[in-house]
Amino acid sequence: MIILPGPASPNLGKCLAAELDTNLVPVYFKKFPDGESYVRIDGNVENQEVVIVQTTSPPQDERLMQLFLMSSAVKHNGAKTITAVLPYFAYSRQDKIFVPGEAFSVKTVVDILETCGVNQIISINSHSPAALSSLSIPVTDHSAIPLLAKHFKKNGIEGAVSLSMGKKGLAMSKEAAAIINGECDYIETRRDRHTGYVDIKEKPLRVKNKTVIFFDDIISSGGTMAKAVAYAKRQGAKKVYAACVHPLLIDDAREKIINNGAEEIVGTDTVPSQVSVVSVAPIIAKALVGLGV
Amino acid sequence: MIILPGPASPNLGKCLAAELDTNLVPVYFKKFPDGESYVRIDGNVENQEVVIVQTTSPPQDERLMQLFLMSSAVKHNGAKTITAVLPYFAYSRQDKIFVPGEAFSVKTVVDILETCGVNQIISINSHSPAALSSLSIPVTDHSAIPLLAKHFKKNGIEGAVSLSMGKKGLAMSKEAAAIINGECDYIETRRDRHTGYVDIKEKPLRVKNKTVIFFDDIISSGGTMAKAVAYAKRQGAKKVYAACVHPLLIDDAREKIINNGAEEIVGTDTVPSQVSVVSVAPIIAKALVGLGV
Repeated sequence: MIILPGPASPNLGKCLAAELDTNLVPVYFKKFPDGESYVRIDGNVENQEVVIVQTTSPPQDERLMQLFLMSSAVKHNGAKTITAVLPYFAYSRQDKIFVPGEAFSVKTVVDILETCGVNQIISINSHSPAALSSLSIPVTDHSAIPLLAKHFKKNGIEGAVSLSMGKKGLAMSKEAAAIINGECDYIETRRDRHTGYVDIKEKPLRVKNKTVIFFDDIISSGGTMAKAVAYAKRQGAKKVYAACVHPLLIDDAREKIINNGAEEIVGTDTVPSQVSVVSVAPIIAKALVGLGV
Repeated sequence: MIILPGPASPNLGKCLAAELDTNLVPVYFKKFPDGESYVRIDGNVENQEVVIVQTTSPPQDERLMQLFLMSSAVKHNGAKTITAVLPYFAYSRQDKIFVPGEAFSVKTVVDILETCGVNQIISINSHSPAALSSLSIPVTDHSAIPLLAKHFKKNGIEGAVSLSMGKKGLAMSKEAAAIINGECDYIETRRDRHTGYVDIKEKPLRVKNKTVIFFDDIISSGGTMAKAVAYAKRQGAKKVYAACVHPLLIDDAREKIINNGAEEIVGTDTVPSQVSVVSVAPIIAKALVGLGV
């Protein structure tokens, strides 16, 4: 097996190669002045089981295009198999046709990857893994929540209350609570169908004088997380942490959350970020071994 | 035949539908806050010969992705055939493998379009039309230079000297000169292979007291065109015009060219631009009729 780190995930690619003690083939990348991407595989991939690591967080389309170009080049150069690791899986929210006429975007992306030679996809906490099971090539999704929980445990924050955003996220806080050895609960959220604006329904939380950790798959604009942190503080929580798998943290999301009372934001390296403190390389390594790559 | 104007070419799509006196099916488009594109076909395309018009000038990857999503949706909704009109064809410069290991980008783009249901492609002055003839679906390329030349003729600029950039472009200035009824020539250019910087070799031009029109397929940063205009002025030209098919005009390209002595820059609507004064709709309409769509 050889690892190709795409231009969007150079560090995660290196971590993964180290974790697996396997070879890394560099990808030369440049951008032309007009914005077109150029990629060149700088090594032999013939008859190899190739793993391309490329996150597709914003700018999604640019990173997807780089992935399409890389895998096509790898295929053209005679790779035996291609596994695409998309730590953040762009367009995975558009996982069915909700309104007639609209694009089934994640299917389009997967169909394209298949055309470009990809045999299977590995992702981390994608929007709804179940919806990905019926696509043209296998997609296996893995949760990084246990890794985040272990990070807190290692740093002495045991017995904290694990909270999720909405009842739907309860599986996440349960997963974390089992590792942290504390209670778990969720805060009720309400999304306005038209504006997309998320509000919090004030239900009592048993967090008085306790440490609280919010677990979520993604923090984008940070609005919901900031409100949740402030609410937990008002409910008497001693310390509040915000943990997420994909710390997109668009614009001033980080400041918003910290200013509302969070001690720290902890994320993984599925996306490049200032708070990417936990590496998902061990999960991906295990997934690859499990798939027999 | 029905026309679908993509979000990058709404006006050209409308012009084309008017030119062909055919129906237009709107495409609803939005961008999510994180940057992902959403498209929905707002009409019936079942059993129709669908023509999607979407330029792929910068931001290329975003516009390509929108095109992939649109054509997949059109295919899913039962279109009989899909013709993709790419007035500006992104990645068409990477039209072969120059160095081992590099991506054959334009082939990747065409393969993807085929996967998304596209049966044929129409483009305008793409980088090297000949190279596109061996791809998986037919690509027919058309020159908009005659349209530009006619624009000048109509505006009373007959008998001007048509000039091209480099000997390679001579076919373009010849094409124009036949319409403008004037002489044609080229200025010698020299490209530094490492920096990409283009310089002009000073060869005498017979332009004294004459009107000169430079014809080129594309103006990007405008550096070469600005130098060419200045050189023609130094050689005694009375008036100098800059004409191109794809007026990308990145950053201050327009100012650079005008400040070096050009009267005006004239371009087509293959890309959205302030100087898109000539519409290529008639060429595309004729091409579609010629292809029997």
